[in-house]
Amino acid sequence: MTAVTRSEHDLLGDRDVPADAYWGVHTLRATENFPITGTPISAYPHLIEALAAVKEAAALANEELGLLAPEKAAAIVAACREIRAGRLHDQFVVDVIQGGAGTSTNMNANEVVANRGLELLGHTKGEYRHLHPNEDVNLGQSTNDVYPTAVRIATVYAVRGLLDAMAVLQDAFAGKAIEFRDVLKMGRTQLQDAVPMTLGQEFSAFAVMLDEDRSRLAEAVELIHEINLGATAIGTGLNAPAGYTESARRHLAAITGLPLVTAANLVEATQDCGAFVQMSGVLKRIAVKLSKTCNDLRLLSSGPRAGLGEINLPPVQAGSSIMPGKVNPVIPEVVNQVAFEVIGNDVTVTMAAEAGQLQLNAFEPIILHSLSESVTHLRAACLTLAERCVVGITANTEVLRATVENSIGLVTALNPHIGYTAATDIAKEALVSGRGVAELVLERGLLPAERLAALLRPEVIAGSGAPVA
Amino acid sequence: MTAVTRSEHDLLGDRDVPADAYWGVHTLRATENFPITGTPISAYPHLIEALAAVKEAAALANEELGLLAPEKAAAIVAACREIRAGRLHDQFVVDVIQGGAGTSTNMNANEVVANRGLELLGHTKGEYRHLHPNEDVNLGQSTNDVYPTAVRIATVYAVRGLLDAMAVLQDAFAGKAIEFRDVLKMGRTQLQDAVPMTLGQEFSAFAVMLDEDRSRLAEAVELIHEINLGATAIGTGLNAPAGYTESARRHLAAITGLPLVTAANLVEATQDCGAFVQMSGVLKRIAVKLSKTCNDLRLLSSGPRAGLGEINLPPVQAGSSIMPGKVNPVIPEVVNQVAFEVIGNDVTVTMAAEAGQLQLNAFEPIILHSLSESVTHLRAACLTLAERCVVGITANTEVLRATVENSIGLVTALNPHIGYTAATDIAKEALVSGRGVAELVLERGLLPAERLAALLRPEVIAGSGAPVA
Amino acid sequence: MTAVTRSEHDLLGDRDVPADAYWGVHTLRATENFPITGTPISAYPHLIEALAAVKEAAALANEELGLLAPEKAAAIVAACREIRAGRLHDQFVVDVIQGGAGTSTNMNANEVVANRGLELLGHTKGEYRHLHPNEDVNLGQSTNDVYPTAVRIATVYAVRGLLDAMAVLQDAFAGKAIEFRDVLKMGRTQLQDAVPMTLGQEFSAFAVMLDEDRSRLAEAVELIHEINLGATAIGTGLNAPAGYTESARRHLAAITGLPLVTAANLVEATQDCGAFVQMSGVLKRIAVKLSKTCNDLRLLSSGPRAGLGEINLPPVQAGSSIMPGKVNPVIPEVVNQVAFEVIGNDVTVTMAAEAGQLQLNAFEPIILHSLSESVTHLRAACLTLAERCVVGITANTEVLRATVENSIGLVTALNPHIGYTAATDIAKEALVSGRGVAELVLERGLLPAERLAALLRPEVIAGSGAPVA
Amino acid sequence: MTAVTRSEHDLLGDRDVPADAYWGVHTLRATENFPITGTPISAYPHLIEALAAVKEAAALANEELGLLAPEKAAAIVAACREIRAGRLHDQFVVDVIQGGAGTSTNMNANEVVANRGLELLGHTKGEYRHLHPNEDVNLGQSTNDVYPTAVRIATVYAVRGLLDAMAVLQDAFAGKAIEFRDVLKMGRTQLQDAVPMTLGQEFSAFAVMLDEDRSRLAEAVELIHEINLGATAIGTGLNAPAGYTESARRHLAAITGLPLVTAANLVEATQDCGAFVQMSGVLKRIAVKLSKTCNDLRLLSSGPRAGLGEINLPPVQAGSSIMPGKVNPVIPEVVNQVAFEVIGNDVTVTMAAEAGQLQLNAFEPIILHSLSESVTHLRAACLTLAERCVVGITANTEVLRATVENSIGLVTALNPHIGYTAATDIAKEALVSGRGVAELVLERGLLPAERLAALLRPEVIAGSGAPVA
Repeated sequence: MTAVTRSEHDLLGDRDVPADAYWGVHTLRATENFPITGTPISAYPHLIEALAAVKEAAALANEELGLLAPEKAAAIVAACREIRAGRLHDQFVVDVIQGGAGTSTNMNANEVVANRGLELLGHTKGEYRHLHPNEDVNLGQSTNDVYPTAVRIATVYAVRGLLDAMAVLQDAFAGKAIEFRDVLKMGRTQLQDAVPMTLGQEFSAFAVMLDEDRSRLAEAVELIHEINLGATAIGTGLNAPAGYTESARRHLAAITGLPLVTAANLVEATQDCGAFVQMSGVLKRIAVKLSKTCNDLRLLSSGPRAGLGEINLPPVQAGSSIMPGKVNPVIPEVVNQVAFEVIGNDVTVTMAAEAGQLQLNAFEPIILHSLSESVTHLRAACLTLAERCVVGITANTEVLRATVENSIGLVTALNPHIGYTAATDIAKEALVSGRGVAELVLERGLLPAERLAALLRPEVIAGSGAPVA
Repeated sequence: MTAVTRSEHDLLGDRDVPADAYWGVHTLRATENFPITGTPISAYPHLIEALAAVKEAAALANEELGLLAPEKAAAIVAACREIRAGRLHDQFVVDVIQGGAGTSTNMNANEVVANRGLELLGHTKGEYRHLHPNEDVNLGQSTNDVYPTAVRIATVYAVRGLLDAMAVLQDAFAGKAIEFRDVLKMGRTQLQDAVPMTLGQEFSAFAVMLDEDRSRLAEAVELIHEINLGATAIGTGLNAPAGYTESARRHLAAITGLPLVTAANLVEATQDCGAFVQMSGVLKRIAVKLSKTCNDLRLLSSGPRAGLGEINLPPVQAGSSIMPGKVNPVIPEVVNQVAFEVIGNDVTVTMAAEAGQLQLNAFEPIILHSLSESVTHLRAACLTLAERCVVGITANTEVLRATVENSIGLVTALNPHIGYTAATDIAKEALVSGRGVAELVLERGLLPAERLAALLRPEVIAGSGAPVA
Repeated sequence: MTAVTRSEHDLLGDRDVPADAYWGVHTLRATENFPITGTPISAYPHLIEALAAVKEAAALANEELGLLAPEKAAAIVAACREIRAGRLHDQFVVDVIQGGAGTSTNMNANEVVANRGLELLGHTKGEYRHLHPNEDVNLGQSTNDVYPTAVRIATVYAVRGLLDAMAVLQDAFAGKAIEFRDVLKMGRTQLQDAVPMTLGQEFSAFAVMLDEDRSRLAEAVELIHEINLGATAIGTGLNAPAGYTESARRHLAAITGLPLVTAANLVEATQDCGAFVQMSGVLKRIAVKLSKTCNDLRLLSSGPRAGLGEINLPPVQAGSSIMPGKVNPVIPEVVNQVAFEVIGNDVTVTMAAEAGQLQLNAFEPIILHSLSESVTHLRAACLTLAERCVVGITANTEVLRATVENSIGLVTALNPHIGYTAATDIAKEALVSGRGVAELVLERGLLPAERLAALLRPEVIAGSGAPVA
Repeated sequence: MTAVTRSEHDLLGDRDVPADAYWGVHTLRATENFPITGTPISAYPHLIEALAAVKEAAALANEELGLLAPEKAAAIVAACREIRAGRLHDQFVVDVIQGGAGTSTNMNANEVVANRGLELLGHTKGEYRHLHPNEDVNLGQSTNDVYPTAVRIATVYAVRGLLDAMAVLQDAFAGKAIEFRDVLKMGRTQLQDAVPMTLGQEFSAFAVMLDEDRSRLAEAVELIHEINLGATAIGTGLNAPAGYTESARRHLAAITGLPLVTAANLVEATQDCGAFVQMSGVLKRIAVKLSKTCNDLRLLSSGPRAGLGEINLPPVQAGSSIMPGKVNPVIPEVVNQVAFEVIGNDVTVTMAAEAGQLQLNAFEPIILHSLSESVTHLRAACLTLAERCVVGITANTEVLRATVENSIGLVTALNPHIGYTAATDIAKEALVSGRGVAELVLERGLLPAERLAALLRPEVIAGSGAPVA
């Protein structure tokens, strides 16, 4: 008969853990201490994989330096590779919101790796005298260098997914910019009719915004490649022997395929959350722009009869439980909401970063949580917006052209020819009388008819300035 | 052989849904449109129950007014009661972050209630000609009155849980305030030694803060009892016949046991998110105070040897994977992080509320999501802080008393007797020389020894002002 | 020949101050230490008056208790009354952003009152042996009770001005609600055409929002009437003799005309910023609603030809330096910007409140600064919006009515008569074909013509639900 | 006798302006429309100078293209140079918070330049037929390209001042890092004693943080050099003739000495506020770090007797009106408050940026206002912190060394030699018994005395990892 539990020991005494659990007493206590969200850290697969990568790199470095027996190192490496391949993630059970600067996450990893390693070595889970979570798996490490390093690697992975999704959305907008390159429309400033442009120019701007945001995001993710592995507890590298830091970095770079660099000042790097604040700030920037873009899409597609009605978003679901036939811009709306969440998360990250004290920031778990949510939700939002909305947008070309031809804003093009003052008089009368600009200019004899017609051609007015993306 | 799928029809055409699904085509499309978080609305059981309560109340009102056949009403009511009893929640599958002002959530509810009702009536799921999601279950309703009403009821339920948890935490602090009523210590302002007080006074302040916050929260939740059921699409009550609004409110109040009132101006109520902004602001206030309290607990327990070391938090887990014997204030730390999240969520709620346009706020789903997270995480944080930290706090009484007796701040008590100017000189010399205040006063002959001893008794100095809670 | 400077002494040594300055050495050092904004605290006249009121009340209480000689008390009272009458404000020169929990502001007040008091007693400024800033003017007080008390009184005064301005704006909207009570228009949800309503209902909602916000603000300001005068340094009341606290409160209530109450727990009250967080949260709520309202006004007045064009805002200035005749919604725009500022200020207040430590919050100066800005700018924004925009708004009644008659949304009213499913088909065909709802219903023989005409009367559809304010 | 007023005309009619005012009717109306803060735009001298630089560059470009008569161009240029030299700033009277996307600011500039130009040409102010604010000074321009361009140039100037101030503060910290390089102390994580380090390492981290922040700020300011001059109203370049954009950019770069580049897509650039959001995010990052640093300084200097007492901040003013001899960390406190303001301002900027619609963001004035406050206040805060605090900090070397020698954290260094498990037992007993780590290790015979002494030398423990800056 198999035992249902095994007994483990820590600073506070003995506790029974389920015999089949790969996690141990430290993890057990953490799950009891942090019953906050009900969501375990396995919800962040990138983080679990990154933790395994760090443990693997450390084991290889320790073996290389003769500090860890080859068979122990081999067991650790094998366990880590299983985790990186997606196995055992269900053993990462600590809550995503947790006290302790990530210690419980690191302990959870140490225990899972040790127990899986023990199995691979032919031992039973819990027989830590053969492979110890702290003395072997965590050898030469501290939560304070392992956890930030893993968070950074996980963030890099996640951000790459976002960059790809943004590119998809940018392409969708750029495609529409070309499709609508000849569709004339009135440009607006402050929601008031301004001067003519093309719908292509309008969509081109959406594409360019994304392109710029991708550049900023790529810059921000560069900063995340700087790690503090080897810093151990506070950055002084206590218990990390000579050569360890560089060896571990080298192995970690090889395992992850990332150009990781060790921070020049490890005391600073161990307490600093600047790169996360920067990343969050850029995510907020992306959110701001996406939200503005979705506001515009919703406004331009307002109607169908009492709105601007310039474009049509593809219908993706019935819009109302009471109003038959109503279709709403639900895809831009969900993107707006993700944007609001990301902007709120940025405040959370800011407060957590500001709350760091002395040699460590104890609040990195909420920073990770907020960043992960922001990145993954933005990614989903970009893809949904591209695939379920932007690619299906159509233009009401006739409506658009009519507003241009009927507009008062055309008079702006006459400024250089009749002056701002005379043009103002024309505009004023057009507004009051409802008559057309050209008609009034001719009536007043301000310009000959042929010249006027040439000046007022919308294509000419809209023509310069902004090449289609 | 049973069919694997059934076909359903909506505005956009036909779609197959799983034959055993209680949800239908509207829900199907919504799950495809909003692949954002992966978390379904069933994560908010209070919301699901509130939706069922609204549907039940509406059916009863419609039956009462002769608009709904009794057997249809009975089927709807029975289905709703099952949902309110906790069944069928797994059928509420729309993502928590969704476009459409809650339409998909309402449609999901309409479909589940209709299909379960059909079963109860002896029909097969999907046979909507016998009981229709929109024409029967949603009769006289719109998402725009159903959803806000359900969100409000769900919020009331959730906030009650928070109020209880805050009371538990308040009691824990109040218990410590009594336990520590005679423990003298130095009070501090701006982190500099100020004048003596008792540790009981310090903990009493924590209790009083919570008491005040509970009062504010109770006030804010009052405002949430105002509903707009009967407003239908935009508050004009279109399709809600005379008597419906009051009847539905009466039934809903009976079902929920809540003193619900119908808003005086339904057009305003349908677009307004003011009560949610207010609620979020109060949650933020609670977060601010909790965070400040946890900062204090962490500071007072700093050490064990190079910190203030005034109190001891109960150890709940080993604190470090590298530093043996280290125990960290992980419970206050997790509460700090929840506080940061709540403060960020308030910004999200603010932005979503500001983004409402004309007759509706389309962004209530993210408001609900943010409020729900804030309320449930705060509740968990309060309970964890009370049970795993505060009740086990002990005081280092000797250390505390020594700092009082050794303090320069005692000189403040002499102001009325030797003047601020002379007292400043004494303080200055005490600081420079390391000598005691009493010694210097006597040396300068400013007060006779007996009088001085009476004035400097810490118990007297700390005595007035703040009764223990 | 008159001396240009006088010498003063403090903890740090001797300094020359201008002979004609009413402020002294403490103020001098503060101006040197805090060269942040260049704006002196005299920019907040309510605060200066409140400080004088506190000093006056304290002097009267001290005299009453026999602690302060009547002639000294008289001099202090006379000086304070001058300040409350608006004199000497230019002597309050410390920067609005300052370290020290308000100590420099309190010291500035002590020095100005002492020096003006000295003059009134026939002495020269700086002869503090006759009337001392700390030993007499500050007798029985600490910055830590004086400053929060003064900030609260100043806030009450300022908020009263805001309440009045909001009432003016509410009246302006209510007036328009009546004026537009018969103007039919399409209501919109999610920017899509919904069902008919009146423009009066739309403006009534704006008025009701303000009414509710005023109620919330009035509640929040109630909490601000609780003061901690008598708490002295940390709430233990050290150096505040028996009877002082109540006497000072009584005098202060009489002087200010405010129903001030002393906090029940002075230790808590001295460190607590909850009432300020609450106030800031309500100001944010007001900002959110005002911004939403202004967004609506700008949207409804968009055009003149390529926008919704439902209402006209009164032109108040030329809108463009290049586009002749363009008029922009500049008044709503400036209100939007004030709202964004207020929302940002709320985050500042939140962070400052959270940063309080142990027995005091050292960051009340930035809280005061942020609240003052928010309240005074909101007041100006409300008045400007009322007077320069709302009262002059006109409706394009014909345009509005035409959109109703042409709308597909009318079909919603037929739901109870032809069913949601049939109505959806009608709506769909209307959208595709551009034809009218009535026409299609008749063509399909769904309802007799007369009955249909009765059901589709917009006045009926818009009629119920929301009484005009 | 000189006329007191002159009459000017605009779209809305005639108005009298003071005869000696350089501003005209557009400015007059703006001052009446925006009575919000009482602070005129002249409070931002960098903005006034940048506006003049833009007007000068445009005039030179227009002259070069033959669009503006040389004598008119000369008058405009001369007027602009006076403004850039600091004259006429008092004529820039529009409120800093204003509606209209900066139109009133641009109009104010046009009018002042025109009227000063008229004087230089021998005419009287207001004789616009000789030199017109719109037709000449604003020729080829729109507020929508002039204003963002000027805001960017002003921001570059202001940020340069901040970069310099940050360098001063960084140098101050770096100087202390060298001074304290041999001062041993206990490092702390989560406010609990960790392992030894040097005070020099602690201050070095402060210096490195600033260095990194300066790099980020320099990157962000690079993005601000991209301008949209030539975009005119919406980015299509209407009324900006061929060659104008490049000529104006070239002149503006020469005038300002800045490497300005024209945006590739002017439609996008005209509506985009991304670079401002990015800048604000970096300012927020700086604020977060500065606040964390000041929190540390206040914590390390807490005491003098009941705190950590590790360092002494130079006293800069008496700390209390009631507690004699008390000195508070007022300089770090004021910096904390500036940080909270900057973080709040970031939310304001975020909301304003998100609120942009279609071809323009109408809310740039509040963006400018918030950024200007943040940059100038941060600059003042850095200088004050450097000069009035950091350079005067001293260390309590003896106290610090004693805490190291007495610490339990030393046991961490024994991990590799006795194992985490045995070390944990030692730590536990040390904590309970109050005994020293070395004593217990020897008693248990875990290591020989000589080897132990070598391992526990604090200099060795603190030695590695972080070079002094």
